[in-house]
Amino acid sequence: MARWEAGARERLVVAAVDLFSEQGYDATTVAQIAERAGVTKSTFFRHFPDKRELLVAGQETLSRLLAEGIAEAPANASPLEAVAAGLERASSIMGPVNREFAPRLKAAIASSAELQARDALKSVGLTAAMTTALVARGVPDPIAALASELGSLAFKRGYAEWAEGRGANDDGLAPYALAALAELRAASASLD
Amino acid sequence: MARWEAGARERLVVAAVDLFSEQGYDATTVAQIAERAGVTKSTFFRHFPDKRELLVAGQETLSRLLAEGIAEAPANASPLEAVAAGLERASSIMGPVNREFAPRLKAAIASSAELQARDALKSVGLTAAMTTALVARGVPDPIAALASELGSLAFKRGYAEWAEGRGANDDGLAPYALAALAELRAASASLD
Repeated sequence: MARWEAGARERLVVAAVDLFSEQGYDATTVAQIAERAGVTKSTFFRHFPDKRELLVAGQETLSRLLAEGIAEAPANASPLEAVAAGLERASSIMGPVNREFAPRLKAAIASSAELQARDALKSVGLTAAMTTALVARGVPDPIAALASELGSLAFKRGYAEWAEGRGANDDGLAPYALAALAELRAASASLD
Repeated sequence: MARWEAGARERLVVAAVDLFSEQGYDATTVAQIAERAGVTKSTFFRHFPDKRELLVAGQETLSRLLAEGIAEAPANASPLEAVAAGLERASSIMGPVNREFAPRLKAAIASSAELQARDALKSVGLTAAMTTALVARGVPDPIAALASELGSLAFKRGYAEWAEGRGANDDGLAPYALAALAELRAASASLD
């Protein structure tokens, strides 16, 4: 039992995304997800409050890593360098399994307005975590807000590129996120 | 009846926000909202699919105005000047009633994770509308994405300042949104 329990969280996420793509988000019940994952309903509820939260399970971890990367950047790092350090840290937990899983996750989110809304709120949460960490470094408000908005957009764009698998199979997410951040930074020279 | 029906949409929004702040979003039913607004449940459903959509009722109008302002900006306008034109156009529908109503709306959204998620998705929708309009002007992708992200952030920040009522009572939203956009543009010089 302990061995099964150990991977339960990941199996629940995979089972849910598979069911959401097969039969739609609304039609999928917690009982079905638990059954597909080979665990009981009470195991489900030990890991997640409801089926919606299941798809944004990584939000707290990502927020923490983004904030840690920013906090631990060298004292003389610029706001955008600190954000880059946060993106690098957060990218480190996204492995080949996340990459392989990304298209199904995307399809599941696209299938439900409720999941799209929850996904949008996830981005807001990641941005807020970066803003707080930048302000704690002494970065003044409008600059902190802008830098974290760029960081959030870079993470989303880098993730999308990475998920489409254009690069080598053993690529991590970090180079994609950092390239997207550099691209956005360069684009800001052409705004006016 | 026709006279009542005419203002039904606005009255439904006001009634809903009042009830959400008084007794919470989850505890508020469509029947209660309709009763408070003095209309039938079927009138409610002629205007809104459910209680969640009621709070983002203006999203389609705002998206359309943002896109129109961008599309009709002079041909030689820069991406950020086009976004400014969009913000100005969209701001024009926000009157004193919206301003007076803003604190209750904010409280209602803060009271419910579901509304926060729907509100986040609204921002994503406004950003996407601006990106599409910029791309249609020939602005290349990373620049269009960045400019519309700045526009969306400026609209949110300008709205918050305006709603707090620091300026004169007859101030429109436009100068707040444009000032926030200029502030963000200036901040981008301090990113690195």
